[in-house]
Amino acid sequence: MVDILRATTSICAAIACGAKSVIPVSSLEEAKEFKQKGFAVAAERDGLMLDFADFGNSAFDFMKNDVSGLEIVFSTTNGTVAMEMAKSSEAVVLGAFINLSALADFLIKTDKNIVILCSGWKNMFCLEDSIFAGALIEKLTESKDFDIQCDSALASLDLWKTAKPDLLGYIQKAAHRKRLRMLGVDDVLEYCFTLDAVDVVPVLKNGRLEKME
Amino acid sequence: MVDILRATTSICAAIACGAKSVIPVSSLEEAKEFKQKGFAVAAERDGLMLDFADFGNSAFDFMKNDVSGLEIVFSTTNGTVAMEMAKSSEAVVLGAFINLSALADFLIKTDKNIVILCSGWKNMFCLEDSIFAGALIEKLTESKDFDIQCDSALASLDLWKTAKPDLLGYIQKAAHRKRLRMLGVDDVLEYCFTLDAVDVVPVLKNGRLEKME
Repeated sequence: MVDILRATTSICAAIACGAKSVIPVSSLEEAKEFKQKGFAVAAERDGLMLDFADFGNSAFDFMKNDVSGLEIVFSTTNGTVAMEMAKSSEAVVLGAFINLSALADFLIKTDKNIVILCSGWKNMFCLEDSIFAGALIEKLTESKDFDIQCDSALASLDLWKTAKPDLLGYIQKAAHRKRLRMLGVDDVLEYCFTLDAVDVVPVLKNGRLEKME
Repeated sequence: MVDILRATTSICAAIACGAKSVIPVSSLEEAKEFKQKGFAVAAERDGLMLDFADFGNSAFDFMKNDVSGLEIVFSTTNGTVAMEMAKSSEAVVLGAFINLSALADFLIKTDKNIVILCSGWKNMFCLEDSIFAGALIEKLTESKDFDIQCDSALASLDLWKTAKPDLLGYIQKAAHRKRLRMLGVDDVLEYCFTLDAVDVVPVLKNGRLEKME
């Protein structure tokens, strides 16, 4: 499951920084209930951190603060909604540019059918998630003879090949990149497109995302 | 509205060959009722022409037979379903590679907001419709300063730029191209990717597609 800007990038960063687990919840009501029970909460809607929350949806929030051992409840505009959709799958793991190689290595070892679920933006296609899907497919097919089953995977691969020579330059035109700039929360952009900054693969188990051991 | 393989290509061809109108219907039941009333019917499911129909879903069916003045009822796997979805729009016009320039000229003159509805295949993304969307966007933006509002339009444009130097070569990997080859109905493929073979723009008016005057 992927939401490059910014949920899966942020969750990978939080777990790499020592957070014990991340509990994704779709609704703000659930997030508030957890907050009342004493949990640390990261909550974002339409790009901005919500008042009641301890963290927003920027990877930097988990790098600037000490999150070691924390269980963090997480609710974002698109990413955690997609996780809810995916939860009945045999296994759900999170992907981002920052954990691309770690994820690819895990998927190759696991040897299962793979669906790459791109979160998008409010039910719309978004460029950055599809480009990541292409990057992942390239990495997977370089190491193993995967049978690509759908046109959207082929299109993602071609979009990645177009974007790859200048990833940050390419992504300037993406709608959500513009949205984050307008909101003044785009300082984390370069980090979101940094390959292999961390080596964790968050996996969803019983409603909690934890580091794959 | 676009369904390159093959509904919008076939309907553009039928109207260019003199058919008076095409009546799109989603269900085969409706198509059969029209047939009983004496209409000519084109009907296809999963790539193949149905027994009760006069025509399949190949542009050649309307070029090999005399269709002048005919009203043809049309029901296909994806294309006519998408037309049903689009019918509440202010105006619905059909696009295909074979009428690309005629369509672009019409859209530029019309000066309205444009949504390019790609039919896809059974609710899935398909490569050939998105590549056409990119070709249309390129043509429109060359002549006029359109404001591209979504990432899917940007992605289509980049896919078209990748495909353009060798369109027929590029499309060999598309899932539906393979499906048509397996069914032995891919003789029309080259025609479906021929630019500007006709100069008609079918427009939907009161449930009938007719040549834009």
